[in-house]
Amino acid sequence: MTEPFDAVDVIVAKRDGRRLTDPQIDWVVDAYTRGVVAHEQMSALAMAILLNGMDRAEIARWTHAMIASGERLDFSGLSRPTADKHSTGGVGDKITLPLAPLVASFGVAVPQLSGRGLGHTGGTLDKLESIPGWRAELSNEAMLAQLEQVGAVICAAGSGLAPADRKLYALRDVTGTVEAIPLIASSIMSKKIAEGTGSLVLDVKVGTGAFMKSIEDARELARTMVDLGTDAGVRTVALLTDMSVPLGRTAGNALEVRESVEVLAGGGPADVVELTVALAREMLDAAGRPDADPAAALADGRAMDVWRAMIRAQGGDPTAELPVAREHEQVVAETDGVLVGLDALAVGVAAWRLGAGRARQDEKVQAGAGVELHARPGDRVRAGQALMTLHTDTPERFARAREALAGAVVVGDGPAPSRPLVLDRIAP
Amino acid sequence: MTEPFDAVDVIVAKRDGRRLTDPQIDWVVDAYTRGVVAHEQMSALAMAILLNGMDRAEIARWTHAMIASGERLDFSGLSRPTADKHSTGGVGDKITLPLAPLVASFGVAVPQLSGRGLGHTGGTLDKLESIPGWRAELSNEAMLAQLEQVGAVICAAGSGLAPADRKLYALRDVTGTVEAIPLIASSIMSKKIAEGTGSLVLDVKVGTGAFMKSIEDARELARTMVDLGTDAGVRTVALLTDMSVPLGRTAGNALEVRESVEVLAGGGPADVVELTVALAREMLDAAGRPDADPAAALADGRAMDVWRAMIRAQGGDPTAELPVAREHEQVVAETDGVLVGLDALAVGVAAWRLGAGRARQDEKVQAGAGVELHARPGDRVRAGQALMTLHTDTPERFARAREALAGAVVVGDGPAPSRPLVLDRIAP
Repeated sequence: MTEPFDAVDVIVAKRDGRRLTDPQIDWVVDAYTRGVVAHEQMSALAMAILLNGMDRAEIARWTHAMIASGERLDFSGLSRPTADKHSTGGVGDKITLPLAPLVASFGVAVPQLSGRGLGHTGGTLDKLESIPGWRAELSNEAMLAQLEQVGAVICAAGSGLAPADRKLYALRDVTGTVEAIPLIASSIMSKKIAEGTGSLVLDVKVGTGAFMKSIEDARELARTMVDLGTDAGVRTVALLTDMSVPLGRTAGNALEVRESVEVLAGGGPADVVELTVALAREMLDAAGRPDADPAAALADGRAMDVWRAMIRAQGGDPTAELPVAREHEQVVAETDGVLVGLDALAVGVAAWRLGAGRARQDEKVQAGAGVELHARPGDRVRAGQALMTLHTDTPERFARAREALAGAVVVGDGPAPSRPLVLDRIAP
Repeated sequence: MTEPFDAVDVIVAKRDGRRLTDPQIDWVVDAYTRGVVAHEQMSALAMAILLNGMDRAEIARWTHAMIASGERLDFSGLSRPTADKHSTGGVGDKITLPLAPLVASFGVAVPQLSGRGLGHTGGTLDKLESIPGWRAELSNEAMLAQLEQVGAVICAAGSGLAPADRKLYALRDVTGTVEAIPLIASSIMSKKIAEGTGSLVLDVKVGTGAFMKSIEDARELARTMVDLGTDAGVRTVALLTDMSVPLGRTAGNALEVRESVEVLAGGGPADVVELTVALAREMLDAAGRPDADPAAALADGRAMDVWRAMIRAQGGDPTAELPVAREHEQVVAETDGVLVGLDALAVGVAAWRLGAGRARQDEKVQAGAGVELHARPGDRVRAGQALMTLHTDTPERFARAREALAGAVVVGDGPAPSRPLVLDRIAP
């Protein structure tokens, strides 16, 4: 078959700062998926996109081409409206776990097609897999049935959605081209649009523990994704939320499930509750339930009922004991004072090194590993007081985790810098 | 073996506009040669270098690393000084053919390790291979012996010099990363420095038929290469020369050999003679023969004697008839007037399409194919007068060659724009 374009011409166009045409974008994404455009050509193009950018129309077309590379799901047969949420990933970010059943408790279907973690931010599936019996893999039919019956499903994204994105993401990971806003936005949104949700709330994290370190970059990414969703007919809104300190008091798989269950039981750390409720309000609003009161559904057990049904529907036992790591060590305060700094990235890397995350795609994670925080910024502490507990099955990992934490905990004269959790809201 | 660096870190450093350190450069070039850094990683790095640049010290180190990937030749045992010349390539650029024997006729050894052509600029070896019996491949020993005995050698560059460059060049060719001045300069200079010449004259072409379209880019490339040569202890100078019209009256393999022999016989087109003499003066000056008179050596047959000896030493018969294409067609003037434009790129592409060049590395070229020019810019022409003759063995190629020439020949009221052949000189 004769190809309509030459890969070098497409690369050179973007390299020289020109717009890619719709046919060029359609072709290069499709030809890369087919293997006609080679990895080394796509990586050069990705670097040119990273450095020279794409405009709104180019990003929309690129996203469309990635969607066209695979199947699309169809939720239109459901009796409920659908609302989905995506987080760009943060340390201790377990929000999906209480959020999905909470929103579903109001009659909205919440399909959370998720991934496993790579690097210092944990994966939602890794967390849920610490629940005995729970299975991440569902057929499309089982997923739809669960959405109709239970209202919430958190499962592995099938390989049929946007296969071009999967191939491109793996390439970007090894070629220093992950941090391109057009490519990040199209990667996230191609899967969400292909999945067929009616509305979508984006949690774009900002800060040391997030992918986006600056509010400007986060705002640009959020705006790009909101535009993409809106143009594709998905009601989309984004919250920019702080990720300079970990969310809640735990980072690790079973540790975070335990904390999520506390939230579903009406308790849990204030910041986790605040963000869960804020995101739930946005999802319910977008799904046509503006009067719903998510805080009440946490308090009165309705959200917990859906959680239990959701875990059981995927083979899990919501009443089972969660795994506990075999070994633990404490990190103590060295002086009296106020805890003014608790760096999210450092805590995330420590949890990862303790075994909560993986460095390679095929690694196993430890269900019980992670970091438990006993103090939060603003708390007064005394020398010798335990600030955190490190959990792992493999004690040789403690040393590397402590290395990651060097300088991350700052005890000073106070007060701790105070910043709001929700920093901004980006709507169409 | 544990690698001292991670490829992604090196890519990200250059992507974010930082300098690469000497150990990073040494490692990434070596690791790419060993296959530890993958093609898709090197292409992303090449694009980042193209867009973000490298400073003088980085380019020098990169060049050094490419030299270190292979063997180095040693001309220090020769009884003569050595002078080499490199052209960035142009249409009708046969200068190496008369130049090497001309300079050698003054007792200077001229090693011209050359390549075959790819694209619209012909290759020196392709041209000489139109001479019956002539062989491009010589062992290092045979090359040294010929340099000592004859003084001039034009032969294929062995695979031992800068193998990293060969691998990188092939990658750049398919990834839109050829046009990076640091990479062009280090590619050329790594081979010239590894070859071990004592002095080097660079002919950097500027204009439509050249790789560098603007004088600014050409000057930057020339300056970069002169710096690299100087830093490596090679006496290096560059001339910027015009390539907006073809050099001489022929573009094609045997056609150009015939024209070169005319120059060696004391005749030939004025521009070819002018550039041959200008480059010869620079080479002789750099090799310690400032008083030599190259024009005289063309006029009195001394250069021709060396040419014949050089061709014979490599199995060729300098008295043999050169191949002639089986078919020819003329391109005629459509109106009376002055020939004001004759686009070098168009003529180069036409010659290539007639069979003088190759589109793929493994293609054969036609010895007789090419374009013969009967008029030069400034000449007065009449409607119906032959402006050029197209030569090929395969007449189905005429149509595509004429397509390439559409708009390339401009007949107007005159006068033709006049521009000097040598535009600038860049010395250390």
